[in-house]
Amino acid sequence: MSIPAPSYVRGIAPYQAGKPISELAREYGLREDRIVKLASNENPLGVPESAQRAMLAELEDLARYPDSNGFVLKGAIARRYEVPPEWVTLGNGSNDILELVAHAVVQPGQSVVYAQYSFAVYALATQEVGAQAIVVPAREHGHDLDAMLAAIRPDTRLVFIANPNNPTGTFAPAQAIERFIERVPADVVVVLDEAYNEYLPPALRFDSVAWVRRFPNLLVCRTFSKVYGLAGLRVGFGLAQPELTDLLNRIRQPFNVNSMAQAAAAAVLFDEAFLQRSYEVNAAGLQRLQSAFAAMGLEYVPSFGNFVLVRVGDAAAVNERLLRAGIIVRPVAGYGLPEWLRVSVGLPEENEAFLAALPAALGRA
Amino acid sequence: MSIPAPSYVRGIAPYQAGKPISELAREYGLREDRIVKLASNENPLGVPESAQRAMLAELEDLARYPDSNGFVLKGAIARRYEVPPEWVTLGNGSNDILELVAHAVVQPGQSVVYAQYSFAVYALATQEVGAQAIVVPAREHGHDLDAMLAAIRPDTRLVFIANPNNPTGTFAPAQAIERFIERVPADVVVVLDEAYNEYLPPALRFDSVAWVRRFPNLLVCRTFSKVYGLAGLRVGFGLAQPELTDLLNRIRQPFNVNSMAQAAAAAVLFDEAFLQRSYEVNAAGLQRLQSAFAAMGLEYVPSFGNFVLVRVGDAAAVNERLLRAGIIVRPVAGYGLPEWLRVSVGLPEENEAFLAALPAALGRA
Repeated sequence: MSIPAPSYVRGIAPYQAGKPISELAREYGLREDRIVKLASNENPLGVPESAQRAMLAELEDLARYPDSNGFVLKGAIARRYEVPPEWVTLGNGSNDILELVAHAVVQPGQSVVYAQYSFAVYALATQEVGAQAIVVPAREHGHDLDAMLAAIRPDTRLVFIANPNNPTGTFAPAQAIERFIERVPADVVVVLDEAYNEYLPPALRFDSVAWVRRFPNLLVCRTFSKVYGLAGLRVGFGLAQPELTDLLNRIRQPFNVNSMAQAAAAAVLFDEAFLQRSYEVNAAGLQRLQSAFAAMGLEYVPSFGNFVLVRVGDAAAVNERLLRAGIIVRPVAGYGLPEWLRVSVGLPEENEAFLAALPAALGRA
Repeated sequence: MSIPAPSYVRGIAPYQAGKPISELAREYGLREDRIVKLASNENPLGVPESAQRAMLAELEDLARYPDSNGFVLKGAIARRYEVPPEWVTLGNGSNDILELVAHAVVQPGQSVVYAQYSFAVYALATQEVGAQAIVVPAREHGHDLDAMLAAIRPDTRLVFIANPNNPTGTFAPAQAIERFIERVPADVVVVLDEAYNEYLPPALRFDSVAWVRRFPNLLVCRTFSKVYGLAGLRVGFGLAQPELTDLLNRIRQPFNVNSMAQAAAAAVLFDEAFLQRSYEVNAAGLQRLQSAFAAMGLEYVPSFGNFVLVRVGDAAAVNERLLRAGIIVRPVAGYGLPEWLRVSVGLPEENEAFLAALPAALGRA
């Protein structure tokens, strides 16, 4: 090793993405159109037509740099969430926002708090800035907010909360989150990552943006990669008051969000029909998967997202047999859950294909 | 200020992008189709048709995450440059690569060397990681490589070299760069940023990728934002040996390059006809602009890129008058060049529109 890179960089284990369909096809000699991918919590309805139309209109203008300030998309988000456009930070996916905030407020040697079994990027962002991770044990696979509050130290600069959480699908009610934020010291930034927010049943929805108005140390993250069906384009955003937003923008790459993503996201943000249909397809598919798991006697974590965590025993072996059957789901051994698989909710026929292949993969057939 | 962000983050002045056409139209009440933008070194021929076709084929698949490993595009780059795919790092524009390498090898308090009047992102990347910038005075607006070599200290981890350089357009011959890399200590990473490489006249071209094979501490950066006409999509890449590439990939955001960009870039990489036409349009336009500046008695820096730096006196005032005439060029006061403007080479009619507006903007009409 001739390059003296920081030890905290050498210590990072890169993120393991869901296997792309094309990769499985190459590796296993399968036909791409026979493969079912339920591995990355994507919207199985595909790209909304509203977004496709917006992209076509953009196609010939792509030799120009994107609008660095995202005027149109920030304006749309500001209208949708009733905040000033100056409170919006656009990201190359919400992944980008999660890393921006770590780089903006954490120095090497300080600490970051997040929950066991919460989104893998929190650990990566923490390691990248040379900070110490304080990983708070989960309670019933979800965030133990009291323990997380107690874990905050004087050198803690950042707390990540995923709600609903990925990969477990757990949900912390609005009052619990609100009480948590109220009690966090004002000099600690709270990131409330709501990538799966739109999948919550209406009765559980709440106005987290109202908290952004109350708490200058709160950053709410949303994404266009899940219910909005634009994962391939990379666009997400953060909402925060001006001081924190200003810090994020100091280190944001000036052209971090491409023109296609900006145009498509602005178009889909008010596509209520697509959102409603996506919600319904997911709710029905989630119920189907969970009922089937119950009927098969498989333990699962009741989910509030567009995926469900199910206990299959030797998950690596089960996953391998599913891959050979052309079904891609997500092993979560990297999360410390070697007996579990995370299965995204697909179209009805995709869910059935997975359920049909599962008994054999479990060695029961 | 309630958020205790690092002082090096608070000290960053965000990048000033070229003004988008839509923004000028809004601010000055102009018609977008009457505005000429020569401000961001974009390819005036627009998006190549080969890329447009590739994007249309991708349109319906964008609800899926991009291929995190960039199999197809890395394969195309590997074939084009005759390196193993494992030597390629894809970036969200080459901007992303420049920041990745800073985060991968530099810690707060260490130092980074780059030249006065070189690309603004070098300063931003240095500040973001809390490092000290060693800015080496330019020689005739270009890199003083001997002085840069002498400026390297024991705590220097990174040297940025832009060749050709932006915003000055200067060029350092192959032998000078090669001798520089040979003499840099092996534990200092050299970034050779060749965003404008394809605009070099054939006689000046050279095989920098051969140096990547010789030097494990060398990272060569290229972009699809300039001659390839894909600035709006955000894609660039770095070439380096496995140790350095591995470090970059540890901190690369897993889905940093969107699917549209990957598909379009793979298509355009071998579009020799488009590249040749772009080269020729640029060479003729550059000659036209430089001849006109000479004829007007304006000092300019002979350029090896797709833009030219010209001395106009009170550049802020000249720029303002050009904006009112619907012409966007780039002020470079932020680079310490308050008497100069950087003018991108456009289509012949765009160059003429700029030259027609220039005398009045200079107060000579």
